[in-house]
Amino acid sequence: MPQLDLSASSIDLTRAICDVPSVSGDERALADLIDEAVGALAHLEVSRDGDTIVARTMLGRAQRVVIAGHIDTVPINGNLPTRDIEIDGQPYLWGRGTVDMKAGVAVQLKLAAELTDPRVDLTWMWYDHEEVDADLNGLTRLARMRPDLFAGDFAILGEPTGAQVEGGCNGNMRAIVRTRGVRAHSARAWIGENAIHRAGAVLERLSEYRPREVAVDGLEYREGLNAVRIHGGIAGNVIPDLCEVEVNYRFAPSLSPIDAEQHVRDVFSGFDVDVVDVAPGARPGLDAPLAREFVAAVGSAPKPKYGWTDVARFSAMGIPAVNYGPGDPQLAHHDEERVPLSQIEDVERGLRSWLTAS
Amino acid sequence: MPQLDLSASSIDLTRAICDVPSVSGDERALADLIDEAVGALAHLEVSRDGDTIVARTMLGRAQRVVIAGHIDTVPINGNLPTRDIEIDGQPYLWGRGTVDMKAGVAVQLKLAAELTDPRVDLTWMWYDHEEVDADLNGLTRLARMRPDLFAGDFAILGEPTGAQVEGGCNGNMRAIVRTRGVRAHSARAWIGENAIHRAGAVLERLSEYRPREVAVDGLEYREGLNAVRIHGGIAGNVIPDLCEVEVNYRFAPSLSPIDAEQHVRDVFSGFDVDVVDVAPGARPGLDAPLAREFVAAVGSAPKPKYGWTDVARFSAMGIPAVNYGPGDPQLAHHDEERVPLSQIEDVERGLRSWLTAS
Repeated sequence: MPQLDLSASSIDLTRAICDVPSVSGDERALADLIDEAVGALAHLEVSRDGDTIVARTMLGRAQRVVIAGHIDTVPINGNLPTRDIEIDGQPYLWGRGTVDMKAGVAVQLKLAAELTDPRVDLTWMWYDHEEVDADLNGLTRLARMRPDLFAGDFAILGEPTGAQVEGGCNGNMRAIVRTRGVRAHSARAWIGENAIHRAGAVLERLSEYRPREVAVDGLEYREGLNAVRIHGGIAGNVIPDLCEVEVNYRFAPSLSPIDAEQHVRDVFSGFDVDVVDVAPGARPGLDAPLAREFVAAVGSAPKPKYGWTDVARFSAMGIPAVNYGPGDPQLAHHDEERVPLSQIEDVERGLRSWLTAS
Repeated sequence: MPQLDLSASSIDLTRAICDVPSVSGDERALADLIDEAVGALAHLEVSRDGDTIVARTMLGRAQRVVIAGHIDTVPINGNLPTRDIEIDGQPYLWGRGTVDMKAGVAVQLKLAAELTDPRVDLTWMWYDHEEVDADLNGLTRLARMRPDLFAGDFAILGEPTGAQVEGGCNGNMRAIVRTRGVRAHSARAWIGENAIHRAGAVLERLSEYRPREVAVDGLEYREGLNAVRIHGGIAGNVIPDLCEVEVNYRFAPSLSPIDAEQHVRDVFSGFDVDVVDVAPGARPGLDAPLAREFVAAVGSAPKPKYGWTDVARFSAMGIPAVNYGPGDPQLAHHDEERVPLSQIEDVERGLRSWLTAS
């Protein structure tokens, strides 16, 4: 395995780390490379837990900023190794992980090596298992094993934002809405009651539902309430007595999980509702002094983040956190995942200018 | 294994053959017993194909009647061995197969042994695999191997009818109604189109559908159109691009499969409809001379049969056929399956009186 050259350009570093596959659960090879490369840097104190690597400056600055990125990707689908492509005259790096989120990690690695004298102390975190069950997430494990490493005044996640600052994130809830009936042989359907037919009213409410836009700390969060799965039926000749609609509610960060559950229960009043999973959102936190300085230095108007990201984890610990990274989030997980080279450089420039400002 | 005593009462014979389990695919032991018992009768010519046994009188009568019953049952669910029970002062035999349809088979076995000089030639058929896929049905196989055995002027199936004559049967069609959409991440649902939400309109049409009652040859057939299964969705965070509703249409025997398909397409106009399975119904055929004589002899006003039965097979061969057997069809497949002893005797008396009338 070649070593990582952290003096290469962030574009070349992106290419290098994308070409080391690291699908969730299989991050070891890439984690070893990162560990070896940052372990060689005298200005960083490096810890490792599983395939999560933390590298810190210990300069005694008044403030500390955490900058984090996950090193795993969703499964490869014929989109590795990376390729250099051009669209409408613009150069892109194409392939799994280029957007979500190895370009962001590459910028972080380059700056971790370069910034020996930043204006704030820095905690770099590169972690595993972000794309799978939250229980497996490297940050979940690290928060349990080494909560001290999360100390900080502000956090930046390198998730793809098109090189814009995206604040906070929506919350995420899944619930099952059930309809019931009475089984019968379908040759004598009038003896039974059809639970699937009753689910029609549930789907009608979803069709008619108009998602809200909710202003939180100056950003407009767009919600969503959707059926993501439906299942019912026993056999081709039986009137079904149960139908289950799984709904996914993406709720504004001003709502608590309890508020969100109440909203779902209100929408489906009269039906049996069972919440199966919830992750609170994160307020944008852009009123924090470091956040305001960061936004000013980067020079872009902050936008809301719709998808759930690990900023919510920092937010829950009381650390204001934003997303800021190269790549179009709509191409994350896409088979045609690709990042404009210019955005990699934009993010590198943005982070460097803020972290080195005096 | 004890032998079957065909001189026992039809009630005792019902008990004996119910206590020999014969779930579809596992009919061998019972078929062997029947084969041995009827093989010993000099007035019958016996053929066997797999676990289907055919026993014929060869008296040279002008007319021949086929009397058939399947010997398999749906799976046992703690309801064997049989028990004698009493409900509201009436004696019942309780247990798997008592209704569907070993009481009917027991009556047939008893009369096959007893009626050495019937007014018409008789073809008794006891067959396997009725409760499963039609391809496995013993009559399907027999029709391919020995079509000559189906020669006849009238057929009686011993399926449970509460000891009434039930004419013909509804047809049976299954179709898939599909809705489509566009996949997207559920955090940005507005980019996609939700196929499950679109299925709401399909379910609404089913909820609002009022099944028809159709008069055929003097009997009123009650139709039914029902969702029997629904399935859609990919993952908890993906807007689904496909939802499939499986509908089951029970259609009056005056409709051809083509008519039935057109009706389903009309009901779901605007949606993608795919017929996956169809079995035509059977007209009651009660205007046939033998059928009229039979109904008169049995002395009950004929009713329509809603469920699909093998009468449709005879009907398709041009042989008028009716259902006539002990037991409430609504208790078929039921864990509390049980037959009133009086109905076993009623059916025995009805068949005997007609077959021995001069």
